Amino acid sequence: MTGNQAGVRNIKFEIEYDGTDFCGWQKQPKVRTVEGEIIKALSGLLGTEPEMIAAGRTDSGVHALGQVANFSCISSLPAGEIMNAVNAILPPDVRITGSAEMALSFNARFDARERTYAYELTRRPTSIWRRHKWFVKYQIDVEAMSRAITSAVGRHDFTAFTTKDEDRSPLISLNAASVTEGERGGICVRLSADRFLRRMVRIMMGTLVEVGRGKLEAGDFCDILATRDRQRAGPCAPPQGLYLVGVEY
Amino acid sequence: MTGNQAGVRNIKFEIEYDGTDFCGWQKQPKVRTVEGEIIKALSGLLGTEPEMIAAGRTDSGVHALGQVANFSCISSLPAGEIMNAVNAILPPDVRITGSAEMALSFNARFDARERTYAYELTRRPTSIWRRHKWFVKYQIDVEAMSRAITSAVGRHDFTAFTTKDEDRSPLISLNAASVTEGERGGICVRLSADRFLRRMVRIMMGTLVEVGRGKLEAGDFCDILATRDRQRAGPCAPPQGLYLVGVEY
Repeated sequence: MTGNQAGVRNIKFEIEYDGTDFCGWQKQPKVRTVEGEIIKALSGLLGTEPEMIAAGRTDSGVHALGQVANFSCISSLPAGEIMNAVNAILPPDVRITGSAEMALSFNARFDARERTYAYELTRRPTSIWRRHKWFVKYQIDVEAMSRAITSAVGRHDFTAFTTKDEDRSPLISLNAASVTEGERGGICVRLSADRFLRRMVRIMMGTLVEVGRGKLEAGDFCDILATRDRQRAGPCAPPQGLYLVGVEY
Repeated sequence: MTGNQAGVRNIKFEIEYDGTDFCGWQKQPKVRTVEGEIIKALSGLLGTEPEMIAAGRTDSGVHALGQVANFSCISSLPAGEIMNAVNAILPPDVRITGSAEMALSFNARFDARERTYAYELTRRPTSIWRRHKWFVKYQIDVEAMSRAITSAVGRHDFTAFTTKDEDRSPLISLNAASVTEGERGGICVRLSADRFLRRMVRIMMGTLVEVGRGKLEAGDFCDILATRDRQRAGPCAPPQGLYLVGVEY
């Protein structure tokens, strides 16, 4: 146990959620958000409203398998008991899947070395996964998608694949990228980077599907990246296929 | 094309559905069922209300990846166009994924040689798959589950694994059974048989989980089968982990 039990402690949560019925991660007035639900549950337990710091601010409809967030508290409950109590209060579309006592210096956002996102496509119309995959009705050249995305691995300016309101540096290290075919027409694209820009994975996915269906060549992907021109990239893919898989520290 | 376009035709549909918000397959007054929704959509299209014959009458909350059903009609629309038109009318939690013109003698229920069901367990608490997997919080011995279920392959009286109101023969040929571990703590049990009794997969699953968590030995599974006594078997597993995967003719 790293924190001082008599004083302020720093608790880390690992969080899984079904983004379908949330207006994204970040707390906002009047709408249902993941952070808002967790703060509400923690407030009831701790008697004060904690501030949370999260590794990724997922958008409306985006899911998480392994979001990480931390918060300060002065409770003397062990971290595991805080997790269990919060899970007993939370609605069923969000679960705390892990908890730990951290050094007071730990910051879930700024200490993250790498985030991994996955995007699930399906080539079969689906009722069962309609909230969890993007149905793409075209013939898809998976090999071409794979060539396109792996060519983008490395440190680049990803301005072409983000929305204009981004004010942070567009220099991103895309550490790993893979495209794998699953059962029943599924395709999963997995990306690991030091951080991600706003809408980056979804705009990359919209562009990759243009490659997969033959509207763009695999080689066009890196050309678009080089232009740093959002207008050259494809459309933004819908949120329901996107998952924040995990965060490395 | 086997049917006579001027007269009565026999159309086969392959159907995928998310069973969460349905009171099962079978049409019933006043409640929302899969068959009821499809008949409503077909009635609008064909001008008359068809009778449907399905390979499996799934219970409330049970899903299908490959349900098969047939119906008679006198429309002159090609089967694929009937499918597309029906899909345009159906709610998003049910999709027709295939259609074919069949001989008038084809009967989706009685001509089926084999049905395959899958049951999805997860050992991690889950928000994303809460409607599509059964969360089991125990330590599970997957190897013991596998030994138990494979020992039941063959032709047996499955009275121990069905509800009492079943009036058909309890002699079932369980042709294949497997237990596989998936990612993130998932376990999938897959069963193929000539047919299944009411609640059979779910009661087998409830019993298998008793084996997996050590309340029963793997060898007990076949002993229970031999007793033909429902009281000896485990509880009925919840519906949301169960999928009708496909039907062989």
